[in-house]
Amino acid sequence: MATNIHDIAYTLQHALKENEDFIALQEQYEKVFANEETKVLFEEFRNMQMELQQKMMQGEQLSEEDNEKAQAIVTRVQQDVNISALMQAEQRVNMLVMDLNKIIMQPLETLYGVQK
Amino acid sequence: MATNIHDIAYTLQHALKENEDFIALQEQYEKVFANEETKVLFEEFRNMQMELQQKMMQGEQLSEEDNEKAQAIVTRVQQDVNISALMQAEQRVNMLVMDLNKIIMQPLETLYGVQK
Ligand SMILES: [Ca+2]
Ligand SMILES: [Ca+2]
Repeated sequence: MATNIHDIAYTLQHALKENEDFIALQEQYEKVFANEETKVLFEEFRNMQMELQQKMMQGEQLSEEDNEKAQAIVTRVQQDVNISALMQAEQRVNMLVMDLNKIIMQPLETLYGVQK
Repeated sequence: MATNIHDIAYTLQHALKENEDFIALQEQYEKVFANEETKVLFEEFRNMQMELQQKMMQGEQLSEEDNEKAQAIVTRVQQDVNISALMQAEQRVNMLVMDLNKIIMQPLETLYGVQK
């Protein structure tokens, strides 16, 4: 093999660091975390998301209270321009990362797909 | 940006296809699936693994029967030279893939780590 596979991964890491969507995400994170109020709301939102995800993964039903609490935070988050922009930036980077993963993992997909 | 990030991902895909651990995995899969008896045992093992994983993810306790059934299949699998070799080959490729992912995702790790 001419090129080391790890070297190519480092090249990809470098390209991600310079990717415009990743840079936009970084900048938007900084904006959200520079403001104490926005930071607290964002962290509240993230904690709520993780709690509910954990419940659902364990097959637990969400209570009326859970749903109301979630709805209240989501409403506040949607009204915050900086957090909304951060979530959009995250979505773009998530889509990029999923694309990259799909490309890289295609040999494994093919291997497992064929053998089924 | 000089190089397209997707092009680099395709270069990595190509390197994975030519990686000796990946090629060994492919060959070992072919061996296991070429023999009907080995194939059936391997599929039984995989199905059992997935069933138990699903139970555990849903927070269910494994029954005495589950454990006995699992132990019986694991014993048979361990005695099969080709399946054992396949599992070792899978482990090597899994480690490679985890290494690559860690390298590629480092910018995101840093971003989320710093902001915590
Ligand atoms: Ca602060
Ligand atoms: Ca066959």
